Amino acid sequence: MTTNHSVSLADRSTVFHSWSAQGALAPLAIAGGLGTTVWDFEGTEYLDFSSQLVNVNIGHQHPTVIAAIQEQAALLTTVAPAHANETRAKAAQLILDRAPAGFEKVFFTNGGADANENAIRMARLVTGRDKVISHYRSYHGNTGAAIVATGDWRRMPNEYSRGHVHAFGPYLYRSDFWATTPEEESERALRHLERVIQSEGADTVAAILLETIPGTAGILVPPPGYLAGVRSLADRHGILLILDEVMAGFGRTGEWFALDAFDVVPDLITFAKGVNSGYVPVGGVLIPSAIAHHFDERVFPGGLTYSGHPLAAASIVGTLTAMAEEGVVENARSIGADVIGPALRRLADSHEVVGEVRGTGVFWAIELVADRDTRAPLDAAAMGGLKGELLGRGLLPFIAETRLHVVPPAVISAEEATRGLAIIDEALATL
Amino acid sequence: MTTNHSVSLADRSTVFHSWSAQGALAPLAIAGGLGTTVWDFEGTEYLDFSSQLVNVNIGHQHPTVIAAIQEQAALLTTVAPAHANETRAKAAQLILDRAPAGFEKVFFTNGGADANENAIRMARLVTGRDKVISHYRSYHGNTGAAIVATGDWRRMPNEYSRGHVHAFGPYLYRSDFWATTPEEESERALRHLERVIQSEGADTVAAILLETIPGTAGILVPPPGYLAGVRSLADRHGILLILDEVMAGFGRTGEWFALDAFDVVPDLITFAKGVNSGYVPVGGVLIPSAIAHHFDERVFPGGLTYSGHPLAAASIVGTLTAMAEEGVVENARSIGADVIGPALRRLADSHEVVGEVRGTGVFWAIELVADRDTRAPLDAAAMGGLKGELLGRGLLPFIAETRLHVVPPAVISAEEATRGLAIIDEALATL
Ligand SMILES: Cc1ncc(COP(=O)(O)O)c(C=O)c1O
Ligand SMILES: Cc1ncc(COP(=O)(O)O)c(C=O)c1O
Repeated sequence: MTTNHSVSLADRSTVFHSWSAQGALAPLAIAGGLGTTVWDFEGTEYLDFSSQLVNVNIGHQHPTVIAAIQEQAALLTTVAPAHANETRAKAAQLILDRAPAGFEKVFFTNGGADANENAIRMARLVTGRDKVISHYRSYHGNTGAAIVATGDWRRMPNEYSRGHVHAFGPYLYRSDFWATTPEEESERALRHLERVIQSEGADTVAAILLETIPGTAGILVPPPGYLAGVRSLADRHGILLILDEVMAGFGRTGEWFALDAFDVVPDLITFAKGVNSGYVPVGGVLIPSAIAHHFDERVFPGGLTYSGHPLAAASIVGTLTAMAEEGVVENARSIGADVIGPALRRLADSHEVVGEVRGTGVFWAIELVADRDTRAPLDAAAMGGLKGELLGRGLLPFIAETRLHVVPPAVISAEEATRGLAIIDEALATL
Repeated sequence: MTTNHSVSLADRSTVFHSWSAQGALAPLAIAGGLGTTVWDFEGTEYLDFSSQLVNVNIGHQHPTVIAAIQEQAALLTTVAPAHANETRAKAAQLILDRAPAGFEKVFFTNGGADANENAIRMARLVTGRDKVISHYRSYHGNTGAAIVATGDWRRMPNEYSRGHVHAFGPYLYRSDFWATTPEEESERALRHLERVIQSEGADTVAAILLETIPGTAGILVPPPGYLAGVRSLADRHGILLILDEVMAGFGRTGEWFALDAFDVVPDLITFAKGVNSGYVPVGGVLIPSAIAHHFDERVFPGGLTYSGHPLAAASIVGTLTAMAEEGVVENARSIGADVIGPALRRLADSHEVVGEVRGTGVFWAIELVADRDTRAPLDAAAMGGLKGELLGRGLLPFIAETRLHVVPPAVISAEEATRGLAIIDEALATL
């Protein structure tokens, strides 16, 4: 008989896990899911406030996407990237339809890391420059170039590349610029970025690579003027701006692209996760006309066996069609504005332990502190306790350092959101 | 109406392609496939002697694998890597069952590049050293560390990393060591590799990363003693040996792993392609006990959103089960020994343009030359002509530089192999 225990045991004896010490793992056995709910092999249900790794924007087991995968599997599951595939072109078109004007082609990859890899490659080749500036507070993927572009701790054991420079980004709650207002944080972060560009030598910098809204780093919604300011700095110095929309894109923020809420058009956009809710591994780069045509006569020296995989493409077509028909992006926006935002602000009022809440759509963080005045982060033991309290009450959380991220599927109903937020309220009260 | 032209046109206006100048592409529109055959939208059939990118080992649209994908899609298509998944553990077990003794865990990735990335990461962390030695004639993937480990031209525009060193490997037909016999080539290649290790400083080298049989580089079956010699060099210097079985593994050579035909057990094995014939993007690293346990208390600093994806896992379970039941590996071996090998040797006898044929299983190369004495390679125009002749006769070829690779699905029948080889015979006669 399949039990939680038997599945966990089989996992622990055969599977090596990401980003972990392998000895102490006690993975949750997930048997199935539907919409915003997953369950284990003993029938215990969890409200999924993690969207797994913030990717299941359309919810679990959406029937349209499942059917699209099953039909494509029956028709033609795989084909080499060099050949033309009908479903792949449809998927590219649906993505381009949602992108800012001027984007012309899609380069498909298997996930977010290789999307950033290829965007960085394009920027280096188009500019003839090497360096990439990204934020310390960022995550861009685990492969050799992407991991050194990453700003957080995952970069440090992986620094085998040169040409990567990191700058501080805006984060008023823990300002690196002694700022006291969002406007001041924005201005000073831009001034800092400009000083980094000047000090590195502007003509050595190929790209500035930023998450439109840094995700794992804490859902750091950029302050007014920041992204537009980066855009004009990049223009002034002939640097390309790459916006990483791997986590923020495709409905998460209540927009098709997170950048739609800001006054900025980047030179390249990378995506993965929400584009098909991760039902099949896929990611990619959105390429504007000028960059695409740069490679009309020149060979683009990047590629991968599963670029433009038909099964992945079918899942994109299914996902984007269903999201449009069902108003999933609009739902994320209104749930964020009408339910999650107000509820989180109430939690901030009623729990000493909440330092700040911030976010948009279904993309929110609750920053937990041991002391509101010093803003000292809560300790790891307390965070572990919180996780247990949430799981025990039937909520599957996404915890990053000393933050609880509130990142349910974008299809969540007001009732489900309210129920989950009540669980969070109860669990915070135990701290 | 969907036509070859409409599909090609949709592709050309929306999709950016791997490893190509985008201007001159005329992609073949593939509508469907079954077993060793694919067809376009006008009903023209092609015998697939490419296995796409040498991945469709089990043939196109194998019913067992399709059913496994469809069933998993209905059950649970995606889950975060941190959770335990039943199908993932099954896939890991089936892979481990086929591996040499001592391999204990599988780290799943999305493809071959990130498999090598993570194997390199493990080797660096376990040894505390930085450098990776690989062959000039090699391909290991397109991401930042994998691409600089790559030996062929695709490395050069991508050299942003340090710590990668390249050595010459054995290739008697174009020896870099002035050798005249396989034994001499083997000994001299080992001596060269040892000189590189010494000159770099043995205690700076984390890993030697080799394709068991270099694939895209020309199906360079290693001469007697070479791999065993590399193994003992690695042991002598505390260097880990990573064998890249992405293209050679899972049936391609007539063995489950290509290394099974050689007297060598590596420290890490990377795989992708044949493990599920590429029906869903997936790859991974096979990890022996000692390396797995190195990370029991230490955090492994690598990961990806789709590590251990259930849909990919289901396709692995379906593929490996069907391959075993249907004797696909044995078929590849006997077709290679009884049909392809003898036929290619006849082609070498009857066509001046054939410089050398070499290979095993369904993994062969015909090396084409303008002059048998000087071994000067055939020119690109002639190779283009050959491609046209083959396509015109209904055979989809895999051409790499001035070689025609004979790499059909491992399920190919003797009749189909004979038919394809007759087409190659005719096409060579036109040169
Ligand atoms: C912003 C961002 N970029 C890139 C990645 C890497 O994506 P993947 O894990 O698919 O390689 C992630 C993954 O969490 C991400 O959040
Ligand atoms: C030997 C070898 N290693 C690695 C790779 C990279 O695999 P992927 O294209 O899935 O990243 C390939 C691809 O052809 C390969 O042949």
